[in-house]
Amino acid sequence: MVAPRWKAALDKALATYPKATVIQLASIDVNTSIPHVRSLIFRSFVSPTDDPSHPLLLATTDVRSPKTAQLIANPHVQVVWWIEGVQEQYRIAGRAHIVPAPKHSLYRQFMHNISQFSEGNLFDWDAKRIEVFKSMSAFMKASWCRPVPGSRLEGGQEEAKKWPVTLEDPKEGDEEGKRLWEMSLRNFALVVIEPQDIDYVELEPIPNRRTRFWRTAGGIWNEEELVP
Amino acid sequence: MVAPRWKAALDKALATYPKATVIQLASIDVNTSIPHVRSLIFRSFVSPTDDPSHPLLLATTDVRSPKTAQLIANPHVQVVWWIEGVQEQYRIAGRAHIVPAPKHSLYRQFMHNISQFSEGNLFDWDAKRIEVFKSMSAFMKASWCRPVPGSRLEGGQEEAKKWPVTLEDPKEGDEEGKRLWEMSLRNFALVVIEPQDIDYVELEPIPNRRTRFWRTAGGIWNEEELVP
Repeated sequence: MVAPRWKAALDKALATYPKATVIQLASIDVNTSIPHVRSLIFRSFVSPTDDPSHPLLLATTDVRSPKTAQLIANPHVQVVWWIEGVQEQYRIAGRAHIVPAPKHSLYRQFMHNISQFSEGNLFDWDAKRIEVFKSMSAFMKASWCRPVPGSRLEGGQEEAKKWPVTLEDPKEGDEEGKRLWEMSLRNFALVVIEPQDIDYVELEPIPNRRTRFWRTAGGIWNEEELVP
Repeated sequence: MVAPRWKAALDKALATYPKATVIQLASIDVNTSIPHVRSLIFRSFVSPTDDPSHPLLLATTDVRSPKTAQLIANPHVQVVWWIEGVQEQYRIAGRAHIVPAPKHSLYRQFMHNISQFSEGNLFDWDAKRIEVFKSMSAFMKASWCRPVPGSRLEGGQEEAKKWPVTLEDPKEGDEEGKRLWEMSLRNFALVVIEPQDIDYVELEPIPNRRTRFWRTAGGIWNEEELVP
């Protein structure tokens, strides 16, 4: 099977504008029926089953952030990806799952979910998680050993100034560095999004174009032209 | 009362980066419990009660788009606004309402809603709607006299090539121009968002800063420092 046409378009846009990696992920808090949306950085596509027709989007998060609980209660999400340089918007609906550290209490739940949605249960998700963690900047790595994101800042800015600004792979005998590295890696999680329905708008051509792509149960992508 | 501090920060960021007006609006389809999110252009703030502590965000839409039904069934939304140039993210939670043309079947519903959420029922919303419509480019104006957005494109690109590309205020005796202008104005609607809870992240200062602002029943804005 081949990669869907929307992915080829996205790959082309990203080849020209490689910094256009800011995406917005919308989820629902089922307790309040309130939508939540935040910016994330798209890291890469991953195809755990080596099937190019089934690309998953990879982003990262702190496992302690509210989106973890939201996605477990309701995995339905939509990503919107506006690529200014090519005047294209991709709205990607599907399911999202959090890949926590194996010792995390949610890991079993994740393995259950991921096996359903991507037949990806033979894939070494923790190896992927560690690979992505190591590829992050020292500055980003330090962001996962702060107190719980979104919690009240106890002690104010004076306290915040004590947080490590960067975090490097600890050298032999650096016990404090090792403690921080392990804390950070424990809080670091992947966000895996499985695209199921894509609304692709091109604002550069006149008349503008809009196409819907959706993945059927058999793994085949259908497409239909829509009114922009 | 004075403008809330988050708005002062946003005004400052927009003064430096006036083109950073792409926002993402998340809503819920209550029939499916699926979140929806799309990019919109922020047009301006509006204060129908002349109270600077109560700024509303203004965007526009085609009243026939699915977000109209979504917002009527559940007005809870969140906007995310990432301003790259200043490395700031504003997540604005609140309620959103659609301001349709007065003859639209939803107008009465809108007037009921808006009177609850902004004491703005004495404000001339239709004058505002027409003012914003007139300020749009001829190209944008033409986008509201196409078939229903998101519907199947009957006739394909050949049909789409027949749509008007631009739309100007019709001259005396231009019956076809007048018909299109009226159709476009009838489909044109405002999206009015009332901010209630703002999550403001600043990624430029080290340590990063994150602040929550929320509006109390008395109209006073509270704020609290959070862990980024």
